[in-house]
Amino acid sequence: MKGIALDIMGGDHAPDEVIKGVKEALEESSSLKLFLVGPEKLVQKGIEKVGVRNLDRVEIVDAPEFVTMKDSLFNYWRGKQKSTIKVGLQLVKEGITDGFFSAGNTGAVMVNARLILEPLEGVERPALAVLLPTDKGFSLIVDAGANSDCRPTNLLQFAHMGTVFMEEFVEKKNPTVGLISIGEEDSKGNRLTKESFRLFSQKVPNFVGNIEGNRIIYGSADILVSDGFTGNVTLKVAEGVAENLLLYFRNAFMKNLLTKLAALVLSRSVKKLKKRLDYSEYGGAILLGVKGIAVIGHGRSKAKAIKNGILATKGMVEKSIHLKIQERMGELNLDV
Amino acid sequence: MKGIALDIMGGDHAPDEVIKGVKEALEESSSLKLFLVGPEKLVQKGIEKVGVRNLDRVEIVDAPEFVTMKDSLFNYWRGKQKSTIKVGLQLVKEGITDGFFSAGNTGAVMVNARLILEPLEGVERPALAVLLPTDKGFSLIVDAGANSDCRPTNLLQFAHMGTVFMEEFVEKKNPTVGLISIGEEDSKGNRLTKESFRLFSQKVPNFVGNIEGNRIIYGSADILVSDGFTGNVTLKVAEGVAENLLLYFRNAFMKNLLTKLAALVLSRSVKKLKKRLDYSEYGGAILLGVKGIAVIGHGRSKAKAIKNGILATKGMVEKSIHLKIQERMGELNLDV
Repeated sequence: MKGIALDIMGGDHAPDEVIKGVKEALEESSSLKLFLVGPEKLVQKGIEKVGVRNLDRVEIVDAPEFVTMKDSLFNYWRGKQKSTIKVGLQLVKEGITDGFFSAGNTGAVMVNARLILEPLEGVERPALAVLLPTDKGFSLIVDAGANSDCRPTNLLQFAHMGTVFMEEFVEKKNPTVGLISIGEEDSKGNRLTKESFRLFSQKVPNFVGNIEGNRIIYGSADILVSDGFTGNVTLKVAEGVAENLLLYFRNAFMKNLLTKLAALVLSRSVKKLKKRLDYSEYGGAILLGVKGIAVIGHGRSKAKAIKNGILATKGMVEKSIHLKIQERMGELNLDV
Repeated sequence: MKGIALDIMGGDHAPDEVIKGVKEALEESSSLKLFLVGPEKLVQKGIEKVGVRNLDRVEIVDAPEFVTMKDSLFNYWRGKQKSTIKVGLQLVKEGITDGFFSAGNTGAVMVNARLILEPLEGVERPALAVLLPTDKGFSLIVDAGANSDCRPTNLLQFAHMGTVFMEEFVEKKNPTVGLISIGEEDSKGNRLTKESFRLFSQKVPNFVGNIEGNRIIYGSADILVSDGFTGNVTLKVAEGVAENLLLYFRNAFMKNLLTKLAALVLSRSVKKLKKRLDYSEYGGAILLGVKGIAVIGHGRSKAKAIKNGILATKGMVEKSIHLKIQERMGELNLDV
């Protein structure tokens, strides 16, 4: 493996927490090689401050600019040619690294990954895939935000790309595919999902039909397909409600001495739940359908989330997810 | 007040729980008059079995057919002319009752309310409005499922109809309006929300911009506007996640003697949360924009939910919500 390019300036806690994540990742994986992409002096200083070891497996690649959460589409599309995101993705494009990870601006990574890495042969629209924790484990939401307006053929490709990801990376056998919709019957939904339902019935072997919003958390399908708008709303509403209820219980636990004791008694269950809901436990969002591996971490990522994101990226590289998707798209001949 | 027509066959627990709800509602409100719509003999038997008092405020209206959750659109649109839903709505249409409540098939009530009651002057698309419990109280989702595919002008009307409902029925002063979308900036969203954002900026005085999925539960806007597909997914995902986490805590509480004691200590907080999340506490979904009051309860409604639904319907009738919406639409001259 050649290594992973890492956006040092990505996320709310960059660069400090990112570099702490680097340290942890290098210590956890002895075969990991990292290309740290950022303003050279800043990276150098950060490495010293954090005390990163294993420097023989680290290279610094200078990128003087970086995209913020407030940058406009124009800025991260046409402007900032020397941004950490563009330089990092360029390393993948040129074959210098095998993958790229950033906890930065999701829109910027997506737009640039499409432009720089380019879509795979036959892929109309790359899509963002995110694992949502459920009662049964995980369901993969595709598209979680890359394409706000879609056609049925886009969704068909999302279904197959998601299937490859679940089979190869999550190692789920025969993963089921559902359409996020507003009723179980094929007659329910909007124009997009109704047409997609017909298409999926013919061209997605493990299609289990429409999945209503309230069934999503029960893991009713391994892969939840939708346009990027609906997928993003679904993901964010689920995150928001879960976070809010955890906060509610935290406040309830803190009321008085007795409730604090109760919290102690329940601490194992609460920890388990927190772990289940904690995005920092599992990698990040991957952009499926481009020529290379590009993974995006949560903007709030701290060291642990960064470490897990880097290692997940490495795992996806090792499984050659993008090549497997390319193969599958060729086999399928989806006629789109 | 002339009275409320009630669908005796609506919901999973009809007719028994519905008639229990009738009994409770009549006992709670001494000015309530009910028209029980259903197969006459069945209603008569139910009244005797449950022991409904206040029979001077009850009339039975025979409707031999009823719509099930499995009926097709065709069945509830063209067929079953003598269904409880059609007969009940006809009573409103003819001015025999002031409103209609059903815990039955939502699609059937919506379709028939549009056909029988008809849209208000100038309303392009009636919309389903549902109160979602949040951290701060309630936010109203419009549209929660009546119109899967919408235009920006539809959403503009939803915003104003929702505003009237929040001002008049919930008695919220100057309620704020947000668009459910996937980013805060006006440039984020899909085609529909981006165009709607521009329109709202000009024509909705209390517009607070896009609301992302994770902010919804924090009550970031009093009225959450979206197409019926997105609104329904939002509502159902929120319900599903909340229900699932409550189940998780219930299981955690039941583990052993100590956890049961912990549950006891926390019981006040848990009860408060359950009450907040319990749909049976607050009325139901109202179809805004038709000539009359039509309210739809949760399919799982038991007696208490039916009672609250009936009383909420009565409250909306007393506030003449539909007439106030008609007035507002006239004043606004929305040019759609």
